[in-house]
Amino acid sequence: MLTLYHQGSSVCAAKVRIAFHEKGLDWRGVVVDVLKGEQFQDWYLALNPNAVVPTLEDDGRVIVESTVICEYLDETRPDPPLRPADAYHTARMRVWTKRIDERLHPMTSALTYAASHRHAILDNNTPEQVEALVAETRDPVKRARKREWIEHGIEAPSARAAVAEFDNTLADMEAALAEAEWLAGDSYSLADIGMTPYVNRLAMLGMEGFWDARPRVAGWFARIRARPSFAPALIDPVPDELARSLAANGARSWPAVAEMLEAGRKGGG
Amino acid sequence: MLTLYHQGSSVCAAKVRIAFHEKGLDWRGVVVDVLKGEQFQDWYLALNPNAVVPTLEDDGRVIVESTVICEYLDETRPDPPLRPADAYHTARMRVWTKRIDERLHPMTSALTYAASHRHAILDNNTPEQVEALVAETRDPVKRARKREWIEHGIEAPSARAAVAEFDNTLADMEAALAEAEWLAGDSYSLADIGMTPYVNRLAMLGMEGFWDARPRVAGWFARIRARPSFAPALIDPVPDELARSLAANGARSWPAVAEMLEAGRKGGG
Repeated sequence: MLTLYHQGSSVCAAKVRIAFHEKGLDWRGVVVDVLKGEQFQDWYLALNPNAVVPTLEDDGRVIVESTVICEYLDETRPDPPLRPADAYHTARMRVWTKRIDERLHPMTSALTYAASHRHAILDNNTPEQVEALVAETRDPVKRARKREWIEHGIEAPSARAAVAEFDNTLADMEAALAEAEWLAGDSYSLADIGMTPYVNRLAMLGMEGFWDARPRVAGWFARIRARPSFAPALIDPVPDELARSLAANGARSWPAVAEMLEAGRKGGG
Repeated sequence: MLTLYHQGSSVCAAKVRIAFHEKGLDWRGVVVDVLKGEQFQDWYLALNPNAVVPTLEDDGRVIVESTVICEYLDETRPDPPLRPADAYHTARMRVWTKRIDERLHPMTSALTYAASHRHAILDNNTPEQVEALVAETRDPVKRARKREWIEHGIEAPSARAAVAEFDNTLADMEAALAEAEWLAGDSYSLADIGMTPYVNRLAMLGMEGFWDARPRVAGWFARIRARPSFAPALIDPVPDELARSLAANGARSWPAVAEMLEAGRKGGG
C-alpha cells in the first residue's frame, strides 16, 4: 500500500501525484496542512525530520524528498517508464530535476508570496496586524525577507531574483524543446514531471505571459495540460479559495512582472 | 573514451575520480584550473555553461554535474555496482547525495576560505593588496562574504554556519552508520563516494577533531582511506603546496572551531 503525506498546494507533493496518475497506481493520501504547521507534529517529524511534504510510505518503508520518491516509484513500478530508455538521456533528465530542486524551487515561495500572498495580507490586516504577522517568523533572515515581500511585493530584491530565475529556466526549456518533444528527449520523463508544478504555478498566478514569446514552452504546457494526470494531480487538490486568490492577486502583480521581463530582455540580462 | 575535465582540489571532481578508480576504468584527464579562471574560456563554456568542474565526455556525449555523472557511470559501467541492490536503499543513497549537493557543498568554500585561505592572504599581502583582492569580486553579495571571511575568519557568520552544517552532517552520519556499515546500507555506494571529499577536506584542514567523539565516522573514514581508490582520487591530484597550506593554516583555525563545536554541543544546538 502506497501512502502519500502531502498537501494540495505543495509543488513538491504535486510531482509525486503526477507520477501516481501516470502509472495508474492505487494510493492513499494523508493531508498534512503545512500552512497550519502540521508538519511539526511529533508523529510527522518521526517520518520526515525535515518537516516538509511530501513523504511516501510504501508498505512501512519511508521515503522522503519528492525527486527521490519519483525515481523510487519508477524503479519499483517501471510500467510505464518515466525515464528515457538510455543512460545519456537519463543524465539529462537528472540535470533538469537537480536544477529545479536547487535553483528554481527556492525561488518559488518568494514569487508566490511577493506576487500574491502579500496582497491578501495587506487587504485583510491593519498595519499592526501585519507587523505581528512578520514578527511571528523567528529566523531573522526569513523575517527580513517576509517584511521585504510584504512591503515591496514583486519589486523586493529576492522577488526580482525569482522572476529572473523563472525567466532563465523558461529560456533554457525553449532551447531544449527545440531539440526534442520533451525536456530530456523523445519521451515524457521525470524532467517534465519535475517542471510541471512550477510552470503551473505561473499559470495559477495568471502569468502565462512568461511564455508569450516562447512557442515551444507554450506547446509543451498545452501537451502537459492535456494529459489525464494533470487535473487530478494539479487542479483538483488545490482549494478553490486559494486558486481564486492566486489568480486575482497574481493579476495585480503581473504588469510589474511584465515590465521587469521586458527590461531584462532588452538589457540582455 | 572517457575524458574528465577536472581539477585536483575540486571536491566535485574528486567524486568522479573515485568512481573511475572503483570501477577500474581507463580515462583521460584534462585539468581546468578554476583558480586561474580557466572555466570561463569559450571552449569550456561550450561544454559546461555553468563554468564549473567536472565535465565528463564519453565518446562525444557531454555530461555535467558530478552527482549525475556518477549515476551515469554506474548505469553504463555497472560492474562493480556503486548503488545498493534494492530501490529502497538506492533512495536512501540519493537522499544523501542530494543533501550533500544542496546543504553541505555550499558551505565548503566558506569553511576552506575562512579557515585556511584567509591566513595565506593576510600573511602575504599588504592591507591595500587585500582590499584590491576583495574588490576583484564583482558580485556584491560574494564580495561582502569574501571580506567577512578575510576579516573575521572562522568567526564570520557564514563560516560559523559552515561549521554547524559539517557538524550536523557528521552527527547524522554517525546515526546512519549505527544501522549499517556504509551510509546507504550494507554496500559501499555513491553516498559514501559523495561524502568522501567533504570529510577528507576536514582531514586536509587538520580538523579530524570533528569526529573525535564519533567512533563510527572515524571507522568509516578509516575504511574509506584504506580503499585503493583513495590515494589516486583524493591525495595524488592535489598540489603539494596547497596540501601544506591547508594543513598549516587549518591548524591555526582549529582551536576556534573546536571551541565552537564544544559550545554547540553543550547548548544542544
